[in-house]
Amino acid sequence: MLPQSMMQRQYIIGVIEHVFKKYGFQPIETPAFEKVETLTGKYGEEGDRLIFKILPRGEKLKAAVEKGEEQALLNKVDEALRYDLTVPFARFVVQNQNDLNFPFKRYQIQPVWRADRPQKGRFREFYQCDADVVGSHSLLQEIEFVAIYTEVLSQLKLPFLIKLNNRKILAGITEKLGIPDRFSEFTVALDKLDKIGLEGVKKELEQKDFKPEVLGTLEDIVTIKGSNHQVINKLSALVEGNEIGESGLSEVSFLVEQCKNLGLEQHLQIDLTLARGLDYYTGAIFEVAAQGVALGSIGGGGRYDDLTGIFGMKNLPGIGISFGLDRIQLALDELKLFPDLEAQSTEVLFVNFGEKEALYSMSIAHELRKINVKTEVYPDKAKLKKQLDYANKKGIAAVVMIGEKEIDEGRFALKNMKSGEQQKMRKIELLEYFSAEKNSSYGRH
Amino acid sequence: MLPQSMMQRQYIIGVIEHVFKKYGFQPIETPAFEKVETLTGKYGEEGDRLIFKILPRGEKLKAAVEKGEEQALLNKVDEALRYDLTVPFARFVVQNQNDLNFPFKRYQIQPVWRADRPQKGRFREFYQCDADVVGSHSLLQEIEFVAIYTEVLSQLKLPFLIKLNNRKILAGITEKLGIPDRFSEFTVALDKLDKIGLEGVKKELEQKDFKPEVLGTLEDIVTIKGSNHQVINKLSALVEGNEIGESGLSEVSFLVEQCKNLGLEQHLQIDLTLARGLDYYTGAIFEVAAQGVALGSIGGGGRYDDLTGIFGMKNLPGIGISFGLDRIQLALDELKLFPDLEAQSTEVLFVNFGEKEALYSMSIAHELRKINVKTEVYPDKAKLKKQLDYANKKGIAAVVMIGEKEIDEGRFALKNMKSGEQQKMRKIELLEYFSAEKNSSYGRH
Repeated sequence: MLPQSMMQRQYIIGVIEHVFKKYGFQPIETPAFEKVETLTGKYGEEGDRLIFKILPRGEKLKAAVEKGEEQALLNKVDEALRYDLTVPFARFVVQNQNDLNFPFKRYQIQPVWRADRPQKGRFREFYQCDADVVGSHSLLQEIEFVAIYTEVLSQLKLPFLIKLNNRKILAGITEKLGIPDRFSEFTVALDKLDKIGLEGVKKELEQKDFKPEVLGTLEDIVTIKGSNHQVINKLSALVEGNEIGESGLSEVSFLVEQCKNLGLEQHLQIDLTLARGLDYYTGAIFEVAAQGVALGSIGGGGRYDDLTGIFGMKNLPGIGISFGLDRIQLALDELKLFPDLEAQSTEVLFVNFGEKEALYSMSIAHELRKINVKTEVYPDKAKLKKQLDYANKKGIAAVVMIGEKEIDEGRFALKNMKSGEQQKMRKIELLEYFSAEKNSSYGRH
Repeated sequence: MLPQSMMQRQYIIGVIEHVFKKYGFQPIETPAFEKVETLTGKYGEEGDRLIFKILPRGEKLKAAVEKGEEQALLNKVDEALRYDLTVPFARFVVQNQNDLNFPFKRYQIQPVWRADRPQKGRFREFYQCDADVVGSHSLLQEIEFVAIYTEVLSQLKLPFLIKLNNRKILAGITEKLGIPDRFSEFTVALDKLDKIGLEGVKKELEQKDFKPEVLGTLEDIVTIKGSNHQVINKLSALVEGNEIGESGLSEVSFLVEQCKNLGLEQHLQIDLTLARGLDYYTGAIFEVAAQGVALGSIGGGGRYDDLTGIFGMKNLPGIGISFGLDRIQLALDELKLFPDLEAQSTEVLFVNFGEKEALYSMSIAHELRKINVKTEVYPDKAKLKKQLDYANKKGIAAVVMIGEKEIDEGRFALKNMKSGEQQKMRKIELLEYFSAEKNSSYGRH
């Protein structure tokens, strides 16, 4: 990541962190390594294959090799790199349950690793930015997460759509179809709709011996379109009489209604085809798409009843969302939505005309830094053009030139790199100039 | 890392980043994975053993196991986790040389991994915070790094000492002793002085067949004490007549002199026993110790003539320093030097008396967040005591209580959690209260 790219990332992370904190989320971090058994079996077969494992070291490795126990070596692997932030978070909550303040609201911004084939917007190492609340069933959290998505993406000026569904609706539908035991297969197939289309999903369900009735309902689900209000109305028929389905619908209605009251409905759209592959979701599910740019989702999440159960802490409900940093960066870059980030780097460069002049410049630079002006002194005596090029490439807006004559006079040339204008200033004037500059340029730091 | 610890780390990183940027350093990041051959042979034999390697996956692994090529499997390992930030940075500079603006000033704050036995202040995963300038021989950079150490640690209020030496002085001394070819062995032994004492180092040198003359000089080096000025004077005799030694001494004198001019000499101390084990240093070397607490060094660095040579880019000089985040955190914690970090988290909590009240509270919370007040609504209807406990544990300073009566009246109770005082306010007064609060508490965000 070159500086230009890093500045973009710091800008995005800054916005996300600011909003997370504003909603009461506190930061945590977990180690890169998890025990292999903590991770395996949590992400499906495909996921298991994509987990990076750490080679056993020293004696363990030697012993396995000497005994010719190649298979056994694999069993000696006990560390792997985290695959997402959710499973490590669940492990963390269980381990630290006595030290946490429930309902516990945490955010976590760290890289994760997947042995995937790299492609546009898909990397083997990428950052996830997650926020979760555990310890509450309250639907107020769902509202807050819609507010968080809306605030972050609006601040970034990125056009977006929050797709909303509820796993209970899908569960209700499969119950009504008499196939509650095949709920997971049904959602996994539905989740592929974006990739393989309706016909593709139908074919897959047929091959798996789902009844024509199921295929018909699938088509009903896919064809329900319209405003959130219209979708809710059409959907009632589909879940009518089924307790879990009706409860899902009522949750969706409540969320849409409350978001409307808070002025958050604009970017929110019920999407019944949204399934999300992960097994642990049990209520509301979200997926966020950037608009005006062809990318996968830039965020997603949902409610779970029992994330920590597999680690021995039952019945701890929660809800969480994630932002995909890399894709948000790609989207903002493609849509040219980044502000001028260079204006946040070095403010003034002192040109170097030789050791004596440079040391003199250093002393003034030192005073400028004391009043928080981002300042550099060019380290070597070099051609003026080379030094000005350096300033231009780095987006430095002002250059101070102090030669022998200027030292004698006690007045220095300040050059504005954009306008090319120069003015002569005494030291005190220079300090005042940048001090005033700081106070007038709000938010520069 | 629990929230309390993370807030401490964010505070330290915030100070370090702020200062790095103020001196013109730009952020970069490198991937966690490097090619194994990029890392091996760079950190000594001991270092090579401590590198974490990634297990080959899929077909590669299968093939090796099937063919019974256990040894070959080891050769198929082509990825390892970074061991520090310096070698990945050198690789990065060579790879991106055409896109960088030289002299290139970068900072990098990322975790590194070492298969060490964990102990106090030593972890298998830890953060390094590095700043380097490459592309300049200028000694002005040495001055700036002393200024950076001084500014960061002064801002953190941590008492510290910057130990300074120069590899050229040590090189000059070994040349004068007629053992220039054993420079590396000599410095490696000298580097152990802190751990094994003078007698230990002497014994090691004896065992390695160094002449008594060398041991005598070692004793001279160790016994030179006093002010920087005195040390420089005594040292002249030791390097007299040796070109490289005298050049090292003159660099040290220059640095001490210029730091004095900038008011930076107070924390700077020449220490001739400082050697630093790493082979790539060729000029000034630094090591920073926290005072008043028993910990290893909290930072270090030095000048190198040719870090990128091994990657095919010759003669690119540079200098860099590092801050040890974990140890700085331990030191600040032990010395109780952290400011009140909780004051930076949630500012106000709305108590939840039921759905109707909570939804009403949500709408006010939404408005407070719009004016950047960090706000939470307790998600569930729970006992008041439980909700106030939650606020206390999280260090939330104010709580708003809105019951049915308050909704009817349009006036709400604001409770100060420290004083216990309560006052009744209308919505507009509440918004004004927090808005005024923000403007008066400078730096709260």
